[in-house]
Amino acid sequence: MKAIEDCTAGIVGLGLMGGAVASALRKLDDAPARILACDRDQSALDAARARLCIDEAFLADEDSGAPRTMLEQCDLVFLCLNPSTLIRFVEASMAFFKSGCLITDVAGIKGSVAALAERLRPDIDFIPGHPMAGAEKDGFSNSGLVDFNGKNYILTPLKRNRPENLAFLKSLIRRMGFSRITETSAAGHDSKIAFTSQLCHVIAASLVDCEADSGITRYGGGSFEDLTRIAMLNAPMWTELFLENRVELLERVTRFEKSLDAIKALIASGDAPELEARLTLIRERRGAMER
Amino acid sequence: MKAIEDCTAGIVGLGLMGGAVASALRKLDDAPARILACDRDQSALDAARARLCIDEAFLADEDSGAPRTMLEQCDLVFLCLNPSTLIRFVEASMAFFKSGCLITDVAGIKGSVAALAERLRPDIDFIPGHPMAGAEKDGFSNSGLVDFNGKNYILTPLKRNRPENLAFLKSLIRRMGFSRITETSAAGHDSKIAFTSQLCHVIAASLVDCEADSGITRYGGGSFEDLTRIAMLNAPMWTELFLENRVELLERVTRFEKSLDAIKALIASGDAPELEARLTLIRERRGAMER
Repeated sequence: MKAIEDCTAGIVGLGLMGGAVASALRKLDDAPARILACDRDQSALDAARARLCIDEAFLADEDSGAPRTMLEQCDLVFLCLNPSTLIRFVEASMAFFKSGCLITDVAGIKGSVAALAERLRPDIDFIPGHPMAGAEKDGFSNSGLVDFNGKNYILTPLKRNRPENLAFLKSLIRRMGFSRITETSAAGHDSKIAFTSQLCHVIAASLVDCEADSGITRYGGGSFEDLTRIAMLNAPMWTELFLENRVELLERVTRFEKSLDAIKALIASGDAPELEARLTLIRERRGAMER
Repeated sequence: MKAIEDCTAGIVGLGLMGGAVASALRKLDDAPARILACDRDQSALDAARARLCIDEAFLADEDSGAPRTMLEQCDLVFLCLNPSTLIRFVEASMAFFKSGCLITDVAGIKGSVAALAERLRPDIDFIPGHPMAGAEKDGFSNSGLVDFNGKNYILTPLKRNRPENLAFLKSLIRRMGFSRITETSAAGHDSKIAFTSQLCHVIAASLVDCEADSGITRYGGGSFEDLTRIAMLNAPMWTELFLENRVELLERVTRFEKSLDAIKALIASGDAPELEARLTLIRERRGAMER
């Protein structure tokens, strides 16, 4: 892989995350020589050009497929699409990627993405990834709300990935602001993420679902606000993520329900010493978790 | 009620909230002439004296009861105790309160406190309250972490409360930084708080309870962190709050479980359009809630 400042980088999908990635790349001391981007939304492309996030914009047409002229130039490609769109895009564009290019993605589920990455042309290298950052609003216009600094990044490298490409990507990710990179398998990612991300979104959604009073926030002291911030979710994306990781997620929901039932039973029984002991253990466990 | 700058104010219980109230009173342009405080913990009293939060400290002894000399001087009393301690304290101190004084409290449950306030001497006026602010650490030493600015405050006034005292207290609360004061009944408070506060704490505790891996936070992107911040709970206090509000809380847990089950069923069935429609409604409902 050549040095990043000699690369042409391509962003596929200029939504919330695509916009944040483009901005982060542009701000690097050794920014890519050129940053190209494609999207189905001309206004997102125009806004990115206006903000000087990208050098050249390519309109992706659902019928005509991927912008071949863009992909043929890119040494590094960030796929910033929902999982199903990502898979359709790569399958349609397989022949257009530049030989030797490095591809990565930002999808919140890695099983199907890793399977796709395994069956690419041998001369291109796809390292699946998941930046653990986001915002409660969608689209390019909100991408300034996404803060990469100090955040986690998960990579699920394949055996076929070239070690120098993995080293290149990790170095780039750190310079984009992320502070902790964890490498695991696609299955390991999907199992952990079912808990830290998807279950939390299901809980937040359920919490809003069970209260119809729009004035309830007058009684908020931060807890409700914290627990439901993520209920402002991108419904099509989270539907995909929940359904694709259905088995792991349902298992996590069931485990959560078991804990909830146990605490509910302690409250119902009025057993103060047992309840206090359990809450004390929970406090200790949360305190012992890595920062 | 005389002007606040002519009052002697008393803080009973110099923990997290007592310390925050003392500091907020001290910072007022028209701060009370004197701020007195009592606690069972000499080190909290010493720290408050050293920080000039209070003018005089009284050690409360569990055996000898309430500090009579302090209460006899106070025109305004903030009871900053857990509900059960608050009730024992007021019952033991009933005779000592200064005639004409205004009492309020900060307890997170109002049923038993309101019942107590109803049976006080007719020459003293107790207006129950609940400042919706806190922190994930306990004790006076952490009271600087509590921020009242822009927060909600709930008052549950009684028919017997004097209107001029209620107006005095509301004006004081606003000057302490709170931006929205809601008046409701004790029962109304306990029903709403079972949802916005107690259910949220039960959920946060359950979420930590169902995952033993202390390295799980490597996979966190903010959702898990937001949802479990409040799992760092003061176990004795929350045990009291959960158990005293048991009926309302269990009803809220059941309603939450029903919503969770419905979303779980949509995920299990793989019904993408229905799941997306429900998540969209939830997003809209959360967005429509008052700020």
